[in-house]
Amino acid sequence: MQYYPPTIVRAIRNLSKLPGIGEKTAERLVLHLLRAPVEEVGGLASSIMELKEKTRLCAMCYSMSDQERCRVCADPGRDPALLCVVEQPADMVAIEKSGGFNGLYHILQGALAPMDGIGPADLRIRELLERVGAGVVREVVLATATNVEGESTAAYLAEQLNRFPIKVTRIASGVPMGGDLKYVDQVTIKRAMEQRHDI
Amino acid sequence: MQYYPPTIVRAIRNLSKLPGIGEKTAERLVLHLLRAPVEEVGGLASSIMELKEKTRLCAMCYSMSDQERCRVCADPGRDPALLCVVEQPADMVAIEKSGGFNGLYHILQGALAPMDGIGPADLRIRELLERVGAGVVREVVLATATNVEGESTAAYLAEQLNRFPIKVTRIASGVPMGGDLKYVDQVTIKRAMEQRHDI
Repeated sequence: MQYYPPTIVRAIRNLSKLPGIGEKTAERLVLHLLRAPVEEVGGLASSIMELKEKTRLCAMCYSMSDQERCRVCADPGRDPALLCVVEQPADMVAIEKSGGFNGLYHILQGALAPMDGIGPADLRIRELLERVGAGVVREVVLATATNVEGESTAAYLAEQLNRFPIKVTRIASGVPMGGDLKYVDQVTIKRAMEQRHDI
Repeated sequence: MQYYPPTIVRAIRNLSKLPGIGEKTAERLVLHLLRAPVEEVGGLASSIMELKEKTRLCAMCYSMSDQERCRVCADPGRDPALLCVVEQPADMVAIEKSGGFNGLYHILQGALAPMDGIGPADLRIRELLERVGAGVVREVVLATATNVEGESTAAYLAEQLNRFPIKVTRIASGVPMGGDLKYVDQVTIKRAMEQRHDI
């Protein structure tokens, strides 16, 4: 590192803070950027800055947006009576990619994790209850992760949503599609067996 | 991609132009940056811009520098009679890290590759000959790569440097240290055998 001038050392240090990028990879990226055209490098730097400057949370669902409301919330073709609760914007993107949902979303911005000091007040739970309380929503699909935090968040939300005259559902869990049974873990198989249904 | 707002799509596109970073990795990096503190993201963006704004080529050896002369050229403890010719700044860094060289460097900025249209005029060969012609240099170590381009560049330079009353050497090639002979390629073993020396 000390063999490079300070500007290069700084760029390597900053790039290696990113997840999955070590010092060696950062060094390779910096050497690439030094050879790349100035427009490409400027475009990269300004689009990184823009992420923080222009991206904000949608005022309705708390997903990422560059407008007051995100594309999904602003879409009149969506069913406002159907609300899907997820932990992170990336979860919403995964569901959108699947094409299997035509309602609106509510992004909690995390999951309950008492061990890490994350309680109900740290998530967008109050906003969820207010939104459901407005009376348009008929069904809430809890699509938090199927790990310990996600499951307990779903259980907590189901209890909280109990007071509204709506349907509360949980996304199905079981054997992944295209999955070979012998490679699926025991907990998933047990769950798939418990939730077996008629065909 | 279309599930994200345009600022995020732009950042993902720009990041995935980097070598070894695909769209999935770029998406993960962007989601990390969105959650990262604004100082960290600003620091990254500005250090990337600085790379192009502040880094220039050392006026003497053509390595990367943020001054008129790079750290190595400006170091009075270096032996100016010993000159090592490499293809790229990264090669110089590799030699510096080894600690096996105390002279100065000359970075060609590439290797001769007639098939790609890179001839002697595209490299810093004229500058090398001028530098050697100044009379201080006593030995030139040709440390271009040991591939076809590097070998032919070394041969060309050896011929050009012939006219000066100096010693021209080539870095040794052979079996890598710590290398198991059965994993070393045939060309390397043949070379190591040809260049065997007394112990």
